[in-house]
Amino acid sequence: MRERILEKAQELFFRFGVKSVTMDDIARELGISKKTIYQHFEDKNSMVCAGVKHHFECDHFIAEKIHNEAPNPIAEAVMGAEMMRQTMSGLNPSAIFDIKKYYPQAWDLFSQYKKEFVLDLIRKNIQKGIEMGLYRSNVNVEIIARLRLEQIEMGLDPYIFPVGHFNPLDTQLELLDHFLRGIVTPEGLELYEEYTKTQLSVSISLSALLNTKSTY
Amino acid sequence: MRERILEKAQELFFRFGVKSVTMDDIARELGISKKTIYQHFEDKNSMVCAGVKHHFECDHFIAEKIHNEAPNPIAEAVMGAEMMRQTMSGLNPSAIFDIKKYYPQAWDLFSQYKKEFVLDLIRKNIQKGIEMGLYRSNVNVEIIARLRLEQIEMGLDPYIFPVGHFNPLDTQLELLDHFLRGIVTPEGLELYEEYTKTQLSVSISLSALLNTKSTY
Repeated sequence: MRERILEKAQELFFRFGVKSVTMDDIARELGISKKTIYQHFEDKNSMVCAGVKHHFECDHFIAEKIHNEAPNPIAEAVMGAEMMRQTMSGLNPSAIFDIKKYYPQAWDLFSQYKKEFVLDLIRKNIQKGIEMGLYRSNVNVEIIARLRLEQIEMGLDPYIFPVGHFNPLDTQLELLDHFLRGIVTPEGLELYEEYTKTQLSVSISLSALLNTKSTY
Repeated sequence: MRERILEKAQELFFRFGVKSVTMDDIARELGISKKTIYQHFEDKNSMVCAGVKHHFECDHFIAEKIHNEAPNPIAEAVMGAEMMRQTMSGLNPSAIFDIKKYYPQAWDLFSQYKKEFVLDLIRKNIQKGIEMGLYRSNVNVEIIARLRLEQIEMGLDPYIFPVGHFNPLDTQLELLDHFLRGIVTPEGLELYEEYTKTQLSVSISLSALLNTKSTY
C-alpha cells in the first residue's frame, strides 16, 4: 500500500505541483481514507521526502545503466538528454519550485544526490571523453563538471528562467547542447552531430533500457 | 573626503574581505577619526553599498568602452577576460562571500546590476556574433545569455567552488573559455584561438582603455 500511495502522490505532484495537491486529493484518487495514508506517512513533508528519494533511486538506476551501456561519453550525454526529455515532458514546473520553496528537507536530498552521485557521473563522463579523444584534453575536469552540475539546477530555477517565458525542457536541452559543444574536440563534434541527426535510434535503445526499469 | 574614504575602504575590503575590516581600521589607515567617517557614511552597511555601487560604475564604464571599441564580439569577450584578470588578481575571495552573506542590501545591488546591465551586454554580444557569422545562428540567445550571466555568479560561489580548492580567477577564465567554445562557428573558433595565442596585444590595448578611466 505504501508503494501505491507514493506512486499516486508522485503522479499528482508531477502533474499539478506539490503545494496544490492535498492529502485529501491523494486519498480521493486512490479511493482510500486519509487515515490509511497517515499509517504510512507521518505528514506531507515525509511523503514528499520519500517521493523525492524514490524518484532519485529510479533516476540513479537508469543513469548507471546508460553509463554502462553507452558506447562512448557523447552517446551517454545524448541518451541522458533523451531520458530528460521523457521525464520532463509531463512535469509541471511548479513541482520543482514548490519543493525548493516549501520542502527544504526534500530539497536537501536533491542537493545531496547531486553532489554525491551526479557530480561523480559527470566527472567520469568527462574523463572518459578526454581519454577517448572526444573531449579536449585541456578541459579542467573539476571546474567543468561543477559547471554542468549547476546548469541542471539553473535550468530548473524559475528566478533565472521564468516559467511563462521559458520551457524547462527546451532550456535543459539548450544548456546541454552548449555544454557538449564547449568541450568536444573536432572528432567529438562530428560524432555529436551525427547523434543529434539520428536521435531516433538512440531513443529506441533508451526505451529498451527504460523497459528494464520494471525489474528494479 | 567621501571619495577618499570610499577608495580606502574598497582597497581594504578587496584585500582582506569585508567582514574583517572595521571602521576603526579604515580610520587608522587614513589617519582620520571615526567621527569623520560617520559624517559621510551612516554605518558600515551604507559604506559597503556605496562601495559596491562605485565599483559597478567603473565596471560599467570600462565594459561599455570595450563593447564600443572591440572589433568583434570575440575580441570583446577576450578583452573582458583580461579586465577580469586585472580586477580579480588582488581580490580576496572572502570579499564577495562576505557581501553575499552579511550585506544583503549590497548584494541586491549586484543582482540588479547583473540583470539590468550585464544581461543586456551579453545579449548584444551574442546577437552581434551571430550576425557576423562568428557564433552559431541556432543559439537560443535568451537562454544562453542567462547561462553566461549565471556563470559569472557561479564562479564566485564558494559553496560550488570552495576557496581552498579553486582559484576564483582560474574558474572564471575556464568558464568563459568553455562558454565561447560552446557558441562559436568554425570561423569564430579560429579567430578565438588566434586571440588566445596573442593575448599580449589585447592586453596592451586594454591597458590603454583602462588608462582613460581617470578621465571618468
